[in-house]
Amino acid sequence: MSLISIISGSASDEQIVERTIRVLDEAGIDYDYQILSAHRNPDELDEYVKNSDSLVFICIAGLSAALPGVVASKTDKPVIGVPVSGTLGGIDALLSIVQMPRGVPVGCVGIDNGANAAHLAVKILAVAGKL
Amino acid sequence: MSLISIISGSASDEQIVERTIRVLDEAGIDYDYQILSAHRNPDELDEYVKNSDSLVFICIAGLSAALPGVVASKTDKPVIGVPVSGTLGGIDALLSIVQMPRGVPVGCVGIDNGANAAHLAVKILAVAGKL
Amino acid sequence: MSLISIISGSASDEQIVERTIRVLDEAGIDYDYQILSAHRNPDELDEYVKNSDSLVFICIAGLSAALPGVVASKTDKPVIGVPVSGTLGGIDALLSIVQMPRGVPVGCVGIDNGANAAHLAVKILAVAGKL
Amino acid sequence: MSLISIISGSASDEQIVERTIRVLDEAGIDYDYQILSAHRNPDELDEYVKNSDSLVFICIAGLSAALPGVVASKTDKPVIGVPVSGTLGGIDALLSIVQMPRGVPVGCVGIDNGANAAHLAVKILAVAGKL
Amino acid sequence: MSLISIISGSASDEQIVERTIRVLDEAGIDYDYQILSAHRNPDELDEYVKNSDSLVFICIAGLSAALPGVVASKTDKPVIGVPVSGTLGGIDALLSIVQMPRGVPVGCVGIDNGANAAHLAVKILAVAGKL
Amino acid sequence: MSLISIISGSASDEQIVERTIRVLDEAGIDYDYQILSAHRNPDELDEYVKNSDSLVFICIAGLSAALPGVVASKTDKPVIGVPVSGTLGGIDALLSIVQMPRGVPVGCVGIDNGANAAHLAVKILAVAGKL
Amino acid sequence: MSLISIISGSASDEQIVERTIRVLDEAGIDYDYQILSAHRNPDELDEYVKNSDSLVFICIAGLSAALPGVVASKTDKPVIGVPVSGTLGGIDALLSIVQMPRGVPVGCVGIDNGANAAHLAVKILAVAGKL
Amino acid sequence: MSLISIISGSASDEQIVERTIRVLDEAGIDYDYQILSAHRNPDELDEYVKNSDSLVFICIAGLSAALPGVVASKTDKPVIGVPVSGTLGGIDALLSIVQMPRGVPVGCVGIDNGANAAHLAVKILAVAGKL
Repeated sequence: MSLISIISGSASDEQIVERTIRVLDEAGIDYDYQILSAHRNPDELDEYVKNSDSLVFICIAGLSAALPGVVASKTDKPVIGVPVSGTLGGIDALLSIVQMPRGVPVGCVGIDNGANAAHLAVKILAVAGKL
Repeated sequence: MSLISIISGSASDEQIVERTIRVLDEAGIDYDYQILSAHRNPDELDEYVKNSDSLVFICIAGLSAALPGVVASKTDKPVIGVPVSGTLGGIDALLSIVQMPRGVPVGCVGIDNGANAAHLAVKILAVAGKL
Repeated sequence: MSLISIISGSASDEQIVERTIRVLDEAGIDYDYQILSAHRNPDELDEYVKNSDSLVFICIAGLSAALPGVVASKTDKPVIGVPVSGTLGGIDALLSIVQMPRGVPVGCVGIDNGANAAHLAVKILAVAGKL
Repeated sequence: MSLISIISGSASDEQIVERTIRVLDEAGIDYDYQILSAHRNPDELDEYVKNSDSLVFICIAGLSAALPGVVASKTDKPVIGVPVSGTLGGIDALLSIVQMPRGVPVGCVGIDNGANAAHLAVKILAVAGKL
Repeated sequence: MSLISIISGSASDEQIVERTIRVLDEAGIDYDYQILSAHRNPDELDEYVKNSDSLVFICIAGLSAALPGVVASKTDKPVIGVPVSGTLGGIDALLSIVQMPRGVPVGCVGIDNGANAAHLAVKILAVAGKL
Repeated sequence: MSLISIISGSASDEQIVERTIRVLDEAGIDYDYQILSAHRNPDELDEYVKNSDSLVFICIAGLSAALPGVVASKTDKPVIGVPVSGTLGGIDALLSIVQMPRGVPVGCVGIDNGANAAHLAVKILAVAGKL
Repeated sequence: MSLISIISGSASDEQIVERTIRVLDEAGIDYDYQILSAHRNPDELDEYVKNSDSLVFICIAGLSAALPGVVASKTDKPVIGVPVSGTLGGIDALLSIVQMPRGVPVGCVGIDNGANAAHLAVKILAVAGKL
Repeated sequence: MSLISIISGSASDEQIVERTIRVLDEAGIDYDYQILSAHRNPDELDEYVKNSDSLVFICIAGLSAALPGVVASKTDKPVIGVPVSGTLGGIDALLSIVQMPRGVPVGCVGIDNGANAAHLAVKILAVAGKL
């Protein structure tokens, strides 16, 4: 059983995913990694989130980054979003991730900052006594 | 059977919805209107979209406006998005709606411009010979 | 007779045009492609749009991207706009395309996302029973 | 015969138009004022510009402010654009007006600054020996 | 002992704080609330954070919103930041909160969205088995 | 005697200056070119502008591009500003040039668009009967 | 003899000026206040700055806020700039003030933050042993 | 004893630091340079600032650039901030540095403009009679 699920919206987010994984590896934390787009794989994503035992979800996405919000709408677990930069420097993904409606929270970290998503997840697992 | 489905993400988008409805009413076009949030009602939304016979979907949403993109991922019909303005003047909703990944298109109209969503839907129905 | 007209404002938009064409080719849809600037060829553009039998217009333009709006003002057919990125990352073209006045709608897709313009056009043609 | 043509894209730009007119009145300069949208009245606009004897065109528009650029594409006379503020504070109209392609210049003044359009026109008329 | 510490940078953030408190009250969660500016009360803030037993910190701040980041640098507990809107619509506080350097994570929620900070904190406490 | 003065704020604006000169050369128009910063050479700039017989001033500057406005404050002749792009894509120079106070107009062209400054100047000279 | 010169570009900046003055009054520091626009009163401004004995200049301006930079180009004393908000929330004035070319520094404080300009000036006077 | 302290938030800001040092070296001014992050080394930073005899602090930082503000909260000496550009062109660091709350001033210079920080510091030292 993984403590953390990392989901990226596209294979092109790989470099940001690696930054996340490196921090988790250093902390010796088990994770599961999936490439599932909120837009291209809505049903697989739904099934994955609902069947996952992970305590924290890290969602990495660019452009109209709906992934973290969609995951947050399907789980009671905390969701961390990582905006990925593109033509607009990542401001599109940042706003898409952070400006969630009341009741469906996502904790957003900095643009391309996969490492901080992992660090935040580690802090949450520590509070949960899982480290 | 309605030709057009209007979905708004929140009851607070009412004023923009009315601008859409007014244009459709003037054109004598049947529509169905639902308030369904991509984040708060994902399952109802999923069911509604998959069971709808509408030829065009108009999705009205503010903030991290995932609604149009989520609908576009669940239907083969054209989806039109209307960004609703808030603290940032609507630029957050605009980018969330328009910056979709390849393969899941949304046609975005101007901020708060519910009327133009209706006008664009009318043009599409005309091409389909449904007017 | 082509079902779709692709118009780009400048020969330098070629790369984005190709992304559009690739999707249409894969779908086996006939298109006509023209380079016509709203600013440099207003009369040819006017004549082309008014004489075209296309059911959907895809207009690709950067900077002060007036092309989609000008075409929308001259046809009853749906118009899809594709903003092309430049010094400002495409935010200039995006706002120029999407912020149309009421009554003259353009459905805007993402920056440089010629593929999604084609995908949206295909959805419209499907509704029209032309696929 | 008027020396200056003022064209606004919409009756709602009235307040900005008045600022322009006040400066011209104070300078004792004859002008002609029209409300003609580049998007809603393309043919009337075309006819007006081509038949006008004005030496300078002042075009006032908000949102996707195509008006100044469209006028500039139809006349050899200098065109001055005035962006009108809206939901986004006028940055949409500003970028739409100023980011013209090479060969079709518009001289843009500040957001809502109808007065400066008149002052710039007066400077041009002075150079032309028409004051 | 409180499970959550709410810190706002200024008494003027009161309205946003109330939205946070309302959610925690509804969930029946104990919290401690302090007004402590990272810039005006650095030593009190330092002492408060280091002596607190809270499991989650919610930091609410506008302008150059250093508060969440400074708190994150002084605790191993997860920190949630809430940007407060001002002249620039809150984009200044949003960027100040979210763009943290690697290793010092803050989970940022939407502008003025004190409710979502509380909702995210509740999710973290649930994972920790504290509800 | 030159009809047009081109002033750039820095030698690093050279590439943009060349685009301006090329258009003027093609039109066979005499110009004078100076590198004079509003900030580093205020007195030489003052003297140059006041002693110049040019009918139009083209001012090319980046960053906090005060040059066009300062020249406009010292001459009755029309001034055209060209914003030069840098770290922020030229939005800093654009706003610095275009947002002039009432009474001191600058006609701003697109970012890095030295060519359009020349084209606009040519239109003004044509109105003045100097071509 | 005043230790500090406050210059605002327009009488409409009065409210921001008052915030500056209040801080200086509380600190018991002598100041001189002038309304002098870099664009509308360049010669008076030049004369005032060159004849002033002030140790610090505080320049308050909106829009294309050239005032602080122009003053900085005419004095060896430190210059503090205060951007004043308008249609664009003050981002135009902020960029105009802060993005100065190398060699002509302005220390910019927050938008509409006249108080902080005074506080920074007080810190400079303290270093100079003038309090 | 150094007259000026230069603090950068990260070793990666080196290039901007060098621009600062070059100007100070040319002016023959003694400085002390430290790499101390407001977020990663809060205690060392606190100790350094409180024990320093420097008359001016120059703080260089990118992203959520809390460094200048944190230093300003711990010293009576003037603090100059230099925003460092990144994915968003430096607008994040600029807003983080300049938008300080009342009472804790930072004088911000242009993005990546380490040279101007030094020039401003030199002006302050000159006023203090330390050159």
